[in-house]
Amino acid sequence: MTTKAPKPETIEKLRHVSVATLCTALFKRGLRHQVVQDVHPVKAKGINMVGPAFTLRYIPAREDRNQLSEFRNPDHPQRKAIETCPPGFVLVMDSRKDARMASAGDILITRLMMRGGAGVVTDGGFRDAMRIGDLGMPAYHHRPASPTNLTNNEAIEINGPIGCGDAPVFPGDIVVGDDDSVIIIPAHLADEIAEEATEMTAYEDFVVEQVQSGETIIGLYPPTDERNLEKFAVWRKANNR
Amino acid sequence: MTTKAPKPETIEKLRHVSVATLCTALFKRGLRHQVVQDVHPVKAKGINMVGPAFTLRYIPAREDRNQLSEFRNPDHPQRKAIETCPPGFVLVMDSRKDARMASAGDILITRLMMRGGAGVVTDGGFRDAMRIGDLGMPAYHHRPASPTNLTNNEAIEINGPIGCGDAPVFPGDIVVGDDDSVIIIPAHLADEIAEEATEMTAYEDFVVEQVQSGETIIGLYPPTDERNLEKFAVWRKANNR
Amino acid sequence: MTTKAPKPETIEKLRHVSVATLCTALFKRGLRHQVVQDVHPVKAKGINMVGPAFTLRYIPAREDRNQLSEFRNPDHPQRKAIETCPPGFVLVMDSRKDARMASAGDILITRLMMRGGAGVVTDGGFRDAMRIGDLGMPAYHHRPASPTNLTNNEAIEINGPIGCGDAPVFPGDIVVGDDDSVIIIPAHLADEIAEEATEMTAYEDFVVEQVQSGETIIGLYPPTDERNLEKFAVWRKANNR
Amino acid sequence: MTTKAPKPETIEKLRHVSVATLCTALFKRGLRHQVVQDVHPVKAKGINMVGPAFTLRYIPAREDRNQLSEFRNPDHPQRKAIETCPPGFVLVMDSRKDARMASAGDILITRLMMRGGAGVVTDGGFRDAMRIGDLGMPAYHHRPASPTNLTNNEAIEINGPIGCGDAPVFPGDIVVGDDDSVIIIPAHLADEIAEEATEMTAYEDFVVEQVQSGETIIGLYPPTDERNLEKFAVWRKANNR
Amino acid sequence: MTTKAPKPETIEKLRHVSVATLCTALFKRGLRHQVVQDVHPVKAKGINMVGPAFTLRYIPAREDRNQLSEFRNPDHPQRKAIETCPPGFVLVMDSRKDARMASAGDILITRLMMRGGAGVVTDGGFRDAMRIGDLGMPAYHHRPASPTNLTNNEAIEINGPIGCGDAPVFPGDIVVGDDDSVIIIPAHLADEIAEEATEMTAYEDFVVEQVQSGETIIGLYPPTDERNLEKFAVWRKANNR
Amino acid sequence: MTTKAPKPETIEKLRHVSVATLCTALFKRGLRHQVVQDVHPVKAKGINMVGPAFTLRYIPAREDRNQLSEFRNPDHPQRKAIETCPPGFVLVMDSRKDARMASAGDILITRLMMRGGAGVVTDGGFRDAMRIGDLGMPAYHHRPASPTNLTNNEAIEINGPIGCGDAPVFPGDIVVGDDDSVIIIPAHLADEIAEEATEMTAYEDFVVEQVQSGETIIGLYPPTDERNLEKFAVWRKANNR
Repeated sequence: MTTKAPKPETIEKLRHVSVATLCTALFKRGLRHQVVQDVHPVKAKGINMVGPAFTLRYIPAREDRNQLSEFRNPDHPQRKAIETCPPGFVLVMDSRKDARMASAGDILITRLMMRGGAGVVTDGGFRDAMRIGDLGMPAYHHRPASPTNLTNNEAIEINGPIGCGDAPVFPGDIVVGDDDSVIIIPAHLADEIAEEATEMTAYEDFVVEQVQSGETIIGLYPPTDERNLEKFAVWRKANNR
Repeated sequence: MTTKAPKPETIEKLRHVSVATLCTALFKRGLRHQVVQDVHPVKAKGINMVGPAFTLRYIPAREDRNQLSEFRNPDHPQRKAIETCPPGFVLVMDSRKDARMASAGDILITRLMMRGGAGVVTDGGFRDAMRIGDLGMPAYHHRPASPTNLTNNEAIEINGPIGCGDAPVFPGDIVVGDDDSVIIIPAHLADEIAEEATEMTAYEDFVVEQVQSGETIIGLYPPTDERNLEKFAVWRKANNR
Repeated sequence: MTTKAPKPETIEKLRHVSVATLCTALFKRGLRHQVVQDVHPVKAKGINMVGPAFTLRYIPAREDRNQLSEFRNPDHPQRKAIETCPPGFVLVMDSRKDARMASAGDILITRLMMRGGAGVVTDGGFRDAMRIGDLGMPAYHHRPASPTNLTNNEAIEINGPIGCGDAPVFPGDIVVGDDDSVIIIPAHLADEIAEEATEMTAYEDFVVEQVQSGETIIGLYPPTDERNLEKFAVWRKANNR
Repeated sequence: MTTKAPKPETIEKLRHVSVATLCTALFKRGLRHQVVQDVHPVKAKGINMVGPAFTLRYIPAREDRNQLSEFRNPDHPQRKAIETCPPGFVLVMDSRKDARMASAGDILITRLMMRGGAGVVTDGGFRDAMRIGDLGMPAYHHRPASPTNLTNNEAIEINGPIGCGDAPVFPGDIVVGDDDSVIIIPAHLADEIAEEATEMTAYEDFVVEQVQSGETIIGLYPPTDERNLEKFAVWRKANNR
Repeated sequence: MTTKAPKPETIEKLRHVSVATLCTALFKRGLRHQVVQDVHPVKAKGINMVGPAFTLRYIPAREDRNQLSEFRNPDHPQRKAIETCPPGFVLVMDSRKDARMASAGDILITRLMMRGGAGVVTDGGFRDAMRIGDLGMPAYHHRPASPTNLTNNEAIEINGPIGCGDAPVFPGDIVVGDDDSVIIIPAHLADEIAEEATEMTAYEDFVVEQVQSGETIIGLYPPTDERNLEKFAVWRKANNR
Repeated sequence: MTTKAPKPETIEKLRHVSVATLCTALFKRGLRHQVVQDVHPVKAKGINMVGPAFTLRYIPAREDRNQLSEFRNPDHPQRKAIETCPPGFVLVMDSRKDARMASAGDILITRLMMRGGAGVVTDGGFRDAMRIGDLGMPAYHHRPASPTNLTNNEAIEINGPIGCGDAPVFPGDIVVGDDDSVIIIPAHLADEIAEEATEMTAYEDFVVEQVQSGETIIGLYPPTDERNLEKFAVWRKANNR
């Protein structure tokens, strides 16, 4: 499968839709497992993380291969991933859903941010999470994990297909995170999903307003009553959506 | 078992006691499993959620019965539950303790609030949790869950007996939530539990003051030293409790 | 194993290093399981909890031995632990990693604080966590747990060796907690670990500054490029570290 | 959804196909969650269990409703389910995937067998499993569970829709168990699935023979090489399949 | 609590009743957590294991205290437990419900058997389980576990109160295991429980016969129909029970 | 790391030692995580599985890439792994420790056997396990799993480094399975481990005989009493070990 890079406006659109809405758009296409399960923002930012995936895979650590001296190797895959992740990309780490040891710490994540990274996701945990949460770049993990990754995770492969939180991730897939969750949009679908989710978001914003003013959801969400579509058309124009 | 509705002042009393105190009152009566395990406030409110339970039960979703078109059915149990939950009630959802897909999202929960709902509890997760947390109505879940409930939960039954977070819930049981936990008080016990917990709370408030001023807990909590009961009597009068 | 009390300055040094750094120092010595897994600050304090461990062990509760009347016994191990934990010590509780019932509540924890306790850790949960979080003393648990400990935990032994969150804890071991995690430093290693971690922290602070100003981590972290050690020497002098 | 009873020969056909083959036939129709996860034969029988589902649902037990005296009630749902499950049906129990207490014991399961039950499945455990395994009727559970169901499961509803081992089960769905697993076939699909699985089984039996005599699976399984379909046609005739 | 040793005939009676029946007898007395959850016979023996408990407790292993050389210490608690467990007793091990490393292996368990041990139970796993299953002495564990206990379990205490599989175990409690499960009978209750369970077993055997000959369970189990008690009286006489 | 193939006699030696003994030999070298956790023989064979690892890795399945038609692709990694695993090798599959869907079924495993495979291991489950257990080739899994792998596992990579049951596995590592467990021996250590384990096994066999004839383990296991080494020397000669 060759990955077609999404259109530039797609990234921008994806900043303004929720992961929940993206889930539904993918569900319509039969994709039900694209949410990275049980990861959380290290600190909620109120804005979306968006970018293509650059991946790192961990396997269980064999002790003789995972002494502190390994980090002296400039080609150690964890450090190399940090130094080669392209600007604008999200580093996604398969840490085997094991948060007993860290996937990375604040020094590496700060470096990733300085190099222009758009964010970082692990299905394990970060050490120095208390400092990572304060960085400007969004970061998602399961929970804080202070022990070094050497304790039982060996970084083994850069930018291959991985699983993260039970979601399939291929390099170049578009990663979107909001304050609730992270989702993986297959690269070839990103343009149409962004477009569709933007439309859905307009309608959902209209619905929220209606509900807040006392309307029932029956006939409105979804719009089985035609009159709601008419009201929506008026609302769109009035709100420039 | 016919459920006797609790006295009006019971609801009010339950706004001013902690779930921990209610646990102990129920423990005295041999009830040890009434806390909804491992649910948390979407956002802590600093006030209690109180109301009789109105229930919704999910089963695993069979794909042919759970396409997006199902939501066009005005009698879909999830939407119908939202539209029929009586004002002042708490909607309690048995989501099979599975937070990989949502129990509901912000539009439905906003509608529940607008209709006068007293709160909502699921042992799964909410989508749009970041927005649900900002609503005026308390909501409790395990963790955020962005995928639509159709992904693997089918709403199947309204207002029958359910399990929620390993607690038994019968319609009309009184649900109380604070910033720590949610508890289910059997309807026929609610009046006496509210009364007893109010008394216990007075004593506990007295104890906290004593401990904060340096008293030992031995003889004080519980009051095996009679003098503490005398001091408490004085304190009650002084504090109008 | 006789436990040598650490030097007084060791406690002070440990207030200024992260648990992550301590993990690495212990990892160098072959100790990989000293972090108390999956416990969290009841409320983040931004400062370290530090003190020798005083322990309490729970076993599953046999109902006939765990009625409310047990608390009338002044020698009940839970209450006795609170009243005998020496000032400056951290009370560490082996709650069998079961957060379905409480390890303790706000009254006891307030009393522990009043007696001079340095903090408290359980691999279960606290009741009244919403109040414990507001105390001046740090507290760590897995999650809030409103039911009384009698529900299924019997306090059985004071100050013996225990496991807490899969970490081995011996009385007198030095416990350090930051906003991410809690770690157990074997008593006989505390002095040298505190010293080494202080040195490591100086270097890490230097590294963070370098990275924030655009430096690569290759050659810097760890310092395989000698020039970074020279820059660090200058930085130390300038920053009085 | 009205449930159409399957044709009589469907039950017979389903005795001769594996659950694995049935899974694939349902997968083709988009149904991916029909296997009752993590249940096992109490004792392998080497034959298939087949029959329509008759269901029983448990919720967590409230202690005041679950004393031993409850069993004196002739309408207790657990006992009533045993005495009303129609001959030829499989009793499927939603025990909330909790095997810490029994779903039933040998006396009730013997009675079910005597009444003509075709089998029994629980996602919890059986007490007296060592005796249930020796009965002539197939039984599936997660693991042995000696405590009475009263300990923490209250039988609450007979023959409604349930979840069992994360599979959706509607009364009348066709249940098939072999020595590996149990699967739930939606009633309206049973005839076509039985037919298709019988065809698939013929081909798979042919394939096994071919592979055992040294053939590669490439081109054979699935039959992308046309010659294998020709060989299969010859084999069918020779083997009267 | 002083433990009264049970009467000699109690042990013999307990050889002829099931753990399920013992559960119910304890349930009547309010004890609901006495089954050692999720342990299984290494190999089913078709006879009961019965004896007073002698306990061993493990905590997580600190690596510097758990090198192979530890086993050279004649007082290492694991080996000492094996060599001091009194004949007729059951060695019960609290392995923290962690079966990733062994609680013991075939050499130690053979030695325990040679010294007259009545059996062994761990909530972890045995190494050399394939050989332990062939010994004459009953053994129960969660699953086979080949790594040495040093890997992450340190034997720390002999014959104190422990938890095993979430059951409370005090030294001298009576342990009974059948092919399904293991249960812990508090020492002071053993005589009356053995007596009562023997009576219950007689009735259950009668019931099974009745059910096998076509009787309904309603009115029979429990015997709400008086005529069943009359038939039972006849049956007892005829069967010398 | 280049993998040195082990000496031919190493494979033979490894047929006669237990996984438990191999664990201890690796533990001496600081390797503590080489056992594939929680996998079991589909059917115990009473002989060891031994061979170099050939690996297959699964990631979560994206639905659009995992329709039944995928199996028509002769290069589908699952089928290709079966057809390219060299004779004498053990196929080890990283199925993400998820046994809800199959890693492979009897047709593929029969083919692997026919091609000369030495065995197969998955940390998921096999479909048609009831038939795989009857094959001549050893197979290990977590539990039976009837749904096709397409349901939620996509075979993505052949013969790279993987994790299997939390053990690190590099192609060419030596895999040994007995009736209890499976272990991964790093290729470069296989010769010395096989040699050492053979020596250890001789001593353990001697110890078992001693213990069976009534000897204490103190001084014998390990042999801190010199006289036991002398007795062992005699025994070796007598038994030609």
